[in-house]
Amino acid sequence: MGSSGDRFSAANGGAAVVDRGVDFANYFCTYAFLYHQKEMLSDRVRMDAYYNSIFSNKHHFVGKTVLDVGTGSGILAIWSAQAGARKVYAVEATKMAEHARELVKANNVQDVVQVIEGSMEDVTLPEKVDIIISEWMGYFLLRESMFDSVIFARERWLKPNGIMYPSHARMWMAPIRTGLTDQKKHDYDGTMEDWLYFVDDTKNYYGVDMSILTKPFDAEQRKYYLQTSLWNNLHPDQVIGTSAVIKEIDCLTATVNDILQVRATFSSSITAEDTRLCGFTGWFDVHFRGRKENPAQQEIELTTAPSMDNCTHWGQQVFLLHSPVRVHEGDDMIVNFSMSRSKENHRLMDVELGCEIKQSSGRELADVHIVKL
Amino acid sequence: MGSSGDRFSAANGGAAVVDRGVDFANYFCTYAFLYHQKEMLSDRVRMDAYYNSIFSNKHHFVGKTVLDVGTGSGILAIWSAQAGARKVYAVEATKMAEHARELVKANNVQDVVQVIEGSMEDVTLPEKVDIIISEWMGYFLLRESMFDSVIFARERWLKPNGIMYPSHARMWMAPIRTGLTDQKKHDYDGTMEDWLYFVDDTKNYYGVDMSILTKPFDAEQRKYYLQTSLWNNLHPDQVIGTSAVIKEIDCLTATVNDILQVRATFSSSITAEDTRLCGFTGWFDVHFRGRKENPAQQEIELTTAPSMDNCTHWGQQVFLLHSPVRVHEGDDMIVNFSMSRSKENHRLMDVELGCEIKQSSGRELADVHIVKL
Repeated sequence: MGSSGDRFSAANGGAAVVDRGVDFANYFCTYAFLYHQKEMLSDRVRMDAYYNSIFSNKHHFVGKTVLDVGTGSGILAIWSAQAGARKVYAVEATKMAEHARELVKANNVQDVVQVIEGSMEDVTLPEKVDIIISEWMGYFLLRESMFDSVIFARERWLKPNGIMYPSHARMWMAPIRTGLTDQKKHDYDGTMEDWLYFVDDTKNYYGVDMSILTKPFDAEQRKYYLQTSLWNNLHPDQVIGTSAVIKEIDCLTATVNDILQVRATFSSSITAEDTRLCGFTGWFDVHFRGRKENPAQQEIELTTAPSMDNCTHWGQQVFLLHSPVRVHEGDDMIVNFSMSRSKENHRLMDVELGCEIKQSSGRELADVHIVKL
Repeated sequence: MGSSGDRFSAANGGAAVVDRGVDFANYFCTYAFLYHQKEMLSDRVRMDAYYNSIFSNKHHFVGKTVLDVGTGSGILAIWSAQAGARKVYAVEATKMAEHARELVKANNVQDVVQVIEGSMEDVTLPEKVDIIISEWMGYFLLRESMFDSVIFARERWLKPNGIMYPSHARMWMAPIRTGLTDQKKHDYDGTMEDWLYFVDDTKNYYGVDMSILTKPFDAEQRKYYLQTSLWNNLHPDQVIGTSAVIKEIDCLTATVNDILQVRATFSSSITAEDTRLCGFTGWFDVHFRGRKENPAQQEIELTTAPSMDNCTHWGQQVFLLHSPVRVHEGDDMIVNFSMSRSKENHRLMDVELGCEIKQSSGRELADVHIVKL
């Protein structure tokens, strides 16, 4: 019977006071499981991108020092060593660090890779590094707020002309059609119908009138079924309009402040002939470009855009509208998107999405939607 | 991606030092959801038992004071008031207390029922009470370790001749046949087969040898698939031998020490003609008998035994053997059962189950099994 429930409030909008034990129970613990690591290691798009970014840019690694933030199984650290790094510090907060150590040894890079178990904010390295490599991206890039730890590591441990792997990140959104709206509406309707029978039965059989709870019960179910963003692996055909970049991050210079909130107003045009606008999808891409002073020889991109053949474990996030809207090719939309960290859990997000549609017919529609990511 | 993961260790075998924030994130939070309360309120067997225990024993309630430990929606408190209680203190640790307050008011018992939001161990009542009523039972009775809070309440707040509702509890076990063994074995085999392909692919495509992790991965999957007790709603026909009481609790006198460990050795005989012993099931019953000095007029029993028509949301717990054993009517078993609180989470249990079978043919078999509840 698992659910998120209540959390410690963030003490202020910036650096949230996070209880470490609670953070572990809520967040870190999943990463201590080999099954979960395997899921990420089995993501071929993810693996290919990082593998190629390293081995196609060995000039960045040969004879250099590397820090792998959140090494997990140790894969990036091992590749860095195989690519010729002089020294690799692989930091991991969970007991997965023990497995990383075994893996490092079994692959004969123990003279190069030092696995350090601990929180990035707590550990001390013997030296600053030339490269910080990390796979920190959560759903829709920023869920899990792991990039905070990468920023911390960069500020504390990256040499002046050091390089970030990845170097850049972007968040994208686009309008979509999806069967999920109907499915969730159906589930919600079913739950509410069942509730009304329940209220009747409880009054008739047990003499207690629960109707006063119908409103909060309904609010809870709306939140659960209709106001929580969904994971999905969308087919490209489900994207029914133009996409837009809503956030760009330079991993070398971004601060925690820059990513506390994502606010964007973007336009989008419907490109499908005659369809239902069910909501919006969000995804991200990251790039391995090196830096101006020391660029990549081969720039690699890792994208999580809707794809037929190149799906990733991240999928995309789906933000459903209250009710689908019939739209036509050429209809224009102005979308206001606002995402900020949940007060109760800085690793989760609150999202507000507003959408004004100017139909080619001249009609105007608007919808505002609040969801949890 | 939810999983239990690591927890704070218990400081000592007795009173565990429990971090409140972590306890909330791991345990309490589920109960703040109306959907979860509704699930329990929709359990007719549960509702009938408590309803009947109260209204068939009004003499216990009329003009008396009541404490409802963990009131949730407030149902037991409201019934107590409707049965004639003078005053009811309804204690609830989560924000569900606010809904309980609304429900109390909507049912016109606000002059009798006072809802107090807080942990039982922290709140102060204006007076001691005549009755403590609580629905504290978790899977196989003791999972969730909520009875600790009831014991605390009893020691602190129950008058000398006060009554506990329920008054008694028992844990039962019996041998079973089930398709779950094959299912879990199949799932486990599939996961391991998939792992071996994964190790091959990772070596071939990415130059990293993960075979060193096969052993810990296997241990993790065994634990997940084969060494974790399962929730099930068993059909009575699946019980293939005699059942036994493995623990009896007098709710008036039991101490936390009494329930830290459940150890039992019991015998069981196969009653089915020719079948597969797949494991053992555990369930519980509670009774509402009042006390010697002030007995119930009508004794009520709430049982969670395997049943066709009277299933409960508790179901039963299933402890699978490593591999099923062919058994026949008359075969005898000696079963050693040992259950204690997990060091990492005092609300979860570690179970060790050993079974020696004396087949009528004379053959002897043994199996020892360790699971998490």
